[in-house]
Amino acid sequence: MKTFTVELGARSYPIYIGSGLLSRPELYQQHIKSKQVLVLTNETVAALYLEPVVSAFTGYTVATVILPDGEQYKTLEFLNRVFDELLTRKFNRNATLIALGGGVIGDMGGFAAACYQRGIPFIQIPTTLLAQVDSSVGGKTGVNHALGKNMIGAFYQPLCVLADTATLNTLDNRQFSAGLAEVIKYGLIRDIEFFVWLENNMEKLLERDPELLAYVIERSCLNKAQVVADDETESGVRATLNLGHTFGHAIETGCGYGSYLHGEAVAIGTCQAADLSWRLGWLDDNEKDRVIRLLAQARLPITPPELATERFLELMEVDKKNLDGQIRLILLHAIGKATLPVNIDHSTLRMTLENYGKA
Amino acid sequence: MKTFTVELGARSYPIYIGSGLLSRPELYQQHIKSKQVLVLTNETVAALYLEPVVSAFTGYTVATVILPDGEQYKTLEFLNRVFDELLTRKFNRNATLIALGGGVIGDMGGFAAACYQRGIPFIQIPTTLLAQVDSSVGGKTGVNHALGKNMIGAFYQPLCVLADTATLNTLDNRQFSAGLAEVIKYGLIRDIEFFVWLENNMEKLLERDPELLAYVIERSCLNKAQVVADDETESGVRATLNLGHTFGHAIETGCGYGSYLHGEAVAIGTCQAADLSWRLGWLDDNEKDRVIRLLAQARLPITPPELATERFLELMEVDKKNLDGQIRLILLHAIGKATLPVNIDHSTLRMTLENYGKA
Repeated sequence: MKTFTVELGARSYPIYIGSGLLSRPELYQQHIKSKQVLVLTNETVAALYLEPVVSAFTGYTVATVILPDGEQYKTLEFLNRVFDELLTRKFNRNATLIALGGGVIGDMGGFAAACYQRGIPFIQIPTTLLAQVDSSVGGKTGVNHALGKNMIGAFYQPLCVLADTATLNTLDNRQFSAGLAEVIKYGLIRDIEFFVWLENNMEKLLERDPELLAYVIERSCLNKAQVVADDETESGVRATLNLGHTFGHAIETGCGYGSYLHGEAVAIGTCQAADLSWRLGWLDDNEKDRVIRLLAQARLPITPPELATERFLELMEVDKKNLDGQIRLILLHAIGKATLPVNIDHSTLRMTLENYGKA
Repeated sequence: MKTFTVELGARSYPIYIGSGLLSRPELYQQHIKSKQVLVLTNETVAALYLEPVVSAFTGYTVATVILPDGEQYKTLEFLNRVFDELLTRKFNRNATLIALGGGVIGDMGGFAAACYQRGIPFIQIPTTLLAQVDSSVGGKTGVNHALGKNMIGAFYQPLCVLADTATLNTLDNRQFSAGLAEVIKYGLIRDIEFFVWLENNMEKLLERDPELLAYVIERSCLNKAQVVADDETESGVRATLNLGHTFGHAIETGCGYGSYLHGEAVAIGTCQAADLSWRLGWLDDNEKDRVIRLLAQARLPITPPELATERFLELMEVDKKNLDGQIRLILLHAIGKATLPVNIDHSTLRMTLENYGKA
């Protein structure tokens, strides 16, 4: 087992990474101070992993909330089911919420914990690659709104994160690849050595070799933790974690939440960001091709859906990075070197939207 | 004009107190960094004060959300109307939310600002006595849930607060008295000199003498600020601000939000807390009578509604101060001296619920 500490002063917390950690509940139970525990999960994950988590809590009052599986349920309405259960069970503000699942469950669990009685303790047990490499670090929580992704939320840190790499064996290929989109992102924005490693090891990684997985998760968390430590509430460099995300969020919102997995939409968005960086003369042909090739090699979609350019632009105008009506994007100066948010001229952006990935 | 600063390190902010301050928009506009402003208010306040606030923003993009007036609309559902408007107008995370109204609007506006894009700037313009003496300080924001009051929320501080005492002239007597319940509370929990002053000046205060009002608001804010500075997220002494509130919240939830004004329910709850303190031998007959007499003199209700004892207890079991199934209350050791949360024996509590205020 590796233990990786996210350094945030008084709110620092450990991430435990390894295979089979779900059978070591003492790792997370040592952080729990009260006897009331609510486990939030979804139907898919519940069938696989709810029982071992719940049965580890002898002597506790344990409530469970099982949501349907999918990004389309990441709403205020479904969040309210968590509050209903917490209040029906009369859980107090020392109660601990455990989010057991992927990115959707982690985001909703963290936000429910942030809001219930203005904040209760919270533990993450991410069971997807995406959640292990992305949601484990950074404290971003929230839900979607019909008009924009992740528009309602809070910054809220967990007590600890337990990343059991064995849970990745039950992921379908689509879910697994979706996680790789965020892994590749860390290489692209700040870690060229990791990017090259991924180019050389993608085949073995797709076979889910446990050693390689633990390495990839730790290196991703390390990259993210360094960025977040410099900028916890995203006033500067943290925005680079959004490479491909403004395009991606537009795809997710425009096609309806749940049509694309988040990582899939980010993969397409990353290709579009690479294309735009190339049009601006920042990436050369070879660099652009390497970006797209590695995403394709990870079995991710690289072609945008049919979405009219005007609609795409309108969706991109609702983004947390935007200021004063300007669309601001994270692009690439090179592989391993992201820009800060840059104001983008609409005519160049249109070129990418109208030409990239079109037959 | 008085300016009172709430000291919270990097999040310190000024409260401007005086008559006619709504005609001095530069006081709050100097804190606004972007050109996007959303004003949240309710129907009653909009008719009186929305126009002067909106018309002060020449050169800004100004959105307004006008909610129906009442505690029963302080829900996630109505909160979503604010998010709808912010997103429809494509407001970004530098947009400023102004809460113009009483406690309900302040709580909802603060919570919407805390959650929108994980936090946007926020200004309070409280227009009721209750909001000026209570919601101006402390950063508590949130909404109610059918099963419990203020159960979903956040701690979130404003950029500044503008308390125009002239707005209190348009309050009906019921609303004005409701604010006095919280004013009297500060005397009871920590400021006997203020309590005695209120006993001696209640008649003039009810005539809304502007000088007396400014004094009362400043002294209340000072008391609250001192408590909050010691304990921003309520792990200790801040809970004393909840005197009468556990009873009061049970009354509000049990009778349906909107039947009682918050301050009215707190007034009744404060009488019950005084009665219970007297039964425990902490207040003598005279002290108990003085508490109840001053609340009555402020034209507040002092008799509990018809609510079965079992139902009352059940409602009190859902309270943020409770731990491990124990009801914990703030009571009085003397006038001017509150207890920290104390575990209360159900049989003594029943005595108060069954006997206080019954014919």
